[in-house]
Amino acid sequence: MGFVKRIRKVGSKLMFIVLSDYSGTVQLVVSNNLPKSLTQESSIEVLGQVVEGKYDLEIHVEQLNILSLASSELPFEVNCADIQANLAKILNYRAFSLRNEHIAAIFKVQSTITAGFSEYLISKGFTSIKSPKLVAGATETGASVFSMNYFGKTACLAQSPQFYKQMMVGSGLERVFEVGPVFRAESHNTSRHINEYTSLDLEIGFITSIKQLMSLEQELLNYIVNKLNKEREYELKLLSVYPLRLGEIPNLTLSEARKILKKEYNYEIMAIDIDPKGEKLICNYVKEKYNSNAIFLTEYPTEARPFYTMPHNANNTLTQSFDLIYNGVEITTGGLRIHNYEQLLKSATKAGLNATEIEHYLTMFNLGMPPHGGFAIGLERLTAQLLGIENIKQATLFPRDQQRLVP
Amino acid sequence: MGFVKRIRKVGSKLMFIVLSDYSGTVQLVVSNNLPKSLTQESSIEVLGQVVEGKYDLEIHVEQLNILSLASSELPFEVNCADIQANLAKILNYRAFSLRNEHIAAIFKVQSTITAGFSEYLISKGFTSIKSPKLVAGATETGASVFSMNYFGKTACLAQSPQFYKQMMVGSGLERVFEVGPVFRAESHNTSRHINEYTSLDLEIGFITSIKQLMSLEQELLNYIVNKLNKEREYELKLLSVYPLRLGEIPNLTLSEARKILKKEYNYEIMAIDIDPKGEKLICNYVKEKYNSNAIFLTEYPTEARPFYTMPHNANNTLTQSFDLIYNGVEITTGGLRIHNYEQLLKSATKAGLNATEIEHYLTMFNLGMPPHGGFAIGLERLTAQLLGIENIKQATLFPRDQQRLVP
Repeated sequence: MGFVKRIRKVGSKLMFIVLSDYSGTVQLVVSNNLPKSLTQESSIEVLGQVVEGKYDLEIHVEQLNILSLASSELPFEVNCADIQANLAKILNYRAFSLRNEHIAAIFKVQSTITAGFSEYLISKGFTSIKSPKLVAGATETGASVFSMNYFGKTACLAQSPQFYKQMMVGSGLERVFEVGPVFRAESHNTSRHINEYTSLDLEIGFITSIKQLMSLEQELLNYIVNKLNKEREYELKLLSVYPLRLGEIPNLTLSEARKILKKEYNYEIMAIDIDPKGEKLICNYVKEKYNSNAIFLTEYPTEARPFYTMPHNANNTLTQSFDLIYNGVEITTGGLRIHNYEQLLKSATKAGLNATEIEHYLTMFNLGMPPHGGFAIGLERLTAQLLGIENIKQATLFPRDQQRLVP
Repeated sequence: MGFVKRIRKVGSKLMFIVLSDYSGTVQLVVSNNLPKSLTQESSIEVLGQVVEGKYDLEIHVEQLNILSLASSELPFEVNCADIQANLAKILNYRAFSLRNEHIAAIFKVQSTITAGFSEYLISKGFTSIKSPKLVAGATETGASVFSMNYFGKTACLAQSPQFYKQMMVGSGLERVFEVGPVFRAESHNTSRHINEYTSLDLEIGFITSIKQLMSLEQELLNYIVNKLNKEREYELKLLSVYPLRLGEIPNLTLSEARKILKKEYNYEIMAIDIDPKGEKLICNYVKEKYNSNAIFLTEYPTEARPFYTMPHNANNTLTQSFDLIYNGVEITTGGLRIHNYEQLLKSATKAGLNATEIEHYLTMFNLGMPPHGGFAIGLERLTAQLLGIENIKQATLFPRDQQRLVP
């Protein structure tokens, strides 16, 4: 049983069909009872003899049943390298678009990234957690949230599992990760933003330096890249990115990066954080200088980071935090967190948060919270950057933006 | 580095500390510079010599630093088999409650269940997918949904990934699974319902009988149970359920079950579906008769199932669907789905759905959708039933009910 990918009729008495299922493709040879109405992309089942063909195994069909006939007018042709339709149409027919093997390859790779993330962390003693997506009011970063009526109260959709993963470090599980959706109500409309995405989150206790976090991420990403090269060689070749290579990721402080951009490209970052153009240029620089696709930027200013970020030991206008920029786009934000109750309370209050609203979170810091830190990787962004895909929506199964809620 | 689980002072010059981290516990012997203010559950780091102790390895401490001091007034004592607090208080201090190793054990088991689910399915050629949780209006089962303003439109929280996993079968991925949150706005207040839970979903193409689905679930659950017995022996023993045993799960049609309940227990089910008491009694019966903890019930009436359920071949008032009842509680619903476009459209219309609202879903059935089916397991229910836990909230990290949105 499988999907009809190609039909070639030779005269009135012979038909070749390429049949495909999740495990691969096979050629069918039909020489009697030729189906009259068979269309490409239909589902069929066949009975027959498996024989050694000219190039590969073939099935000489004795009986062919159509299980589900595809319309003779497909939304677009899928047996090609590039679908001749714009992104909106492809997304309207998203499930069907995966009948194109280049598009299916993206999501097979994504599935393996998710599996690799979990596998590696479990091997390092991490526990997988599931934190709630319906949460009470307070937001931890000031990002816009979606809110709704929840049995007469106001609930918001979690913009990240940040508070929960920190609390679970304090729970004694100590090393935790979560793969789950996060929601951002921001009205961005760019090739790198969507309003719902999958976050690969982790948090780890008893660490005291962001070097430990960066080296953990380095090892984690190398594990994933090696797994992809091994298990997704076919898909990576199809997408012309085989083999993926990561290697040693260099790091720079944000202020070093500013100086380099000024000196090498005469480009000055005006904001307190690096901007998209700066991310692209600094990646060009590390590509040339270190032959690396990625760079860790560190020591972000305090005002560019959430209240729970650990300040720098020597300079409290800076933080012990980092971003990972991969092929010109930020794919990770991470850092050490404040673990001292008084310090955290002060920082939260300064950031305008109401201590009562976050008391369930704060309480944990009075109960022996260890020094800790963590980071989060956007699954769709990581997929896009590893595969050299321009628009994050191409690496999202059913993307959500301001206009799109379907399919 | 680790958490202080016990402190025993012998005179003024000797202190024994049980220290715990994610990997286990060790005894510390402190014989000079005894910390004055150390409290149980604090985080500390120590330097010292590892020596062979009376029972096990010990660390003779040379230096001890307190990293984070726990309040001397803990919400409740955690070094005991049963926490002396009601469920509401335990849930208010949920993260801290995991310092109790019996409670932590539940969530370590849950983490391994999730890992086992993914591992087994990947080994069978399944692809992991991430479907959106923000969806447009239509609900597939009539269950109540949470809705919100989404950039001027109305979005709902997905009550299941049903439509998406079916479409992804049709995408040619053919075998797909998802681990993700689902949301039910129903105002249940029982020991078996919560308003947000984790659904372990799968869907598979080119199958034509629910026997294939039941046998897949049987193998999947046996894989998970074996993995738990191997990797979570310590936790299962702590919870007095080692070894878990599943074996062969028998099956009965719903009407056979009705007859048995009437005959054996003089209990008559009044509703079209089996009720909680019926679920308990039928499990008692299969326990006695087949020495099994679980039972598949099949042939649910059409009106008790969603519109996309495949009718029975011989009797269209019945469906080709099943539930799995485990130790008295339903943990799975599954079945074959309608794959023919006209039949599905008719069934949807009959159920009162607007075809335009679900056209993105319906369209796929005109594009060679194979015969298919699937099922979903509630992660928290499965955890609770495997471990013999009474209330599903005890098996949910941060449960959501009508009253509870925090922590």
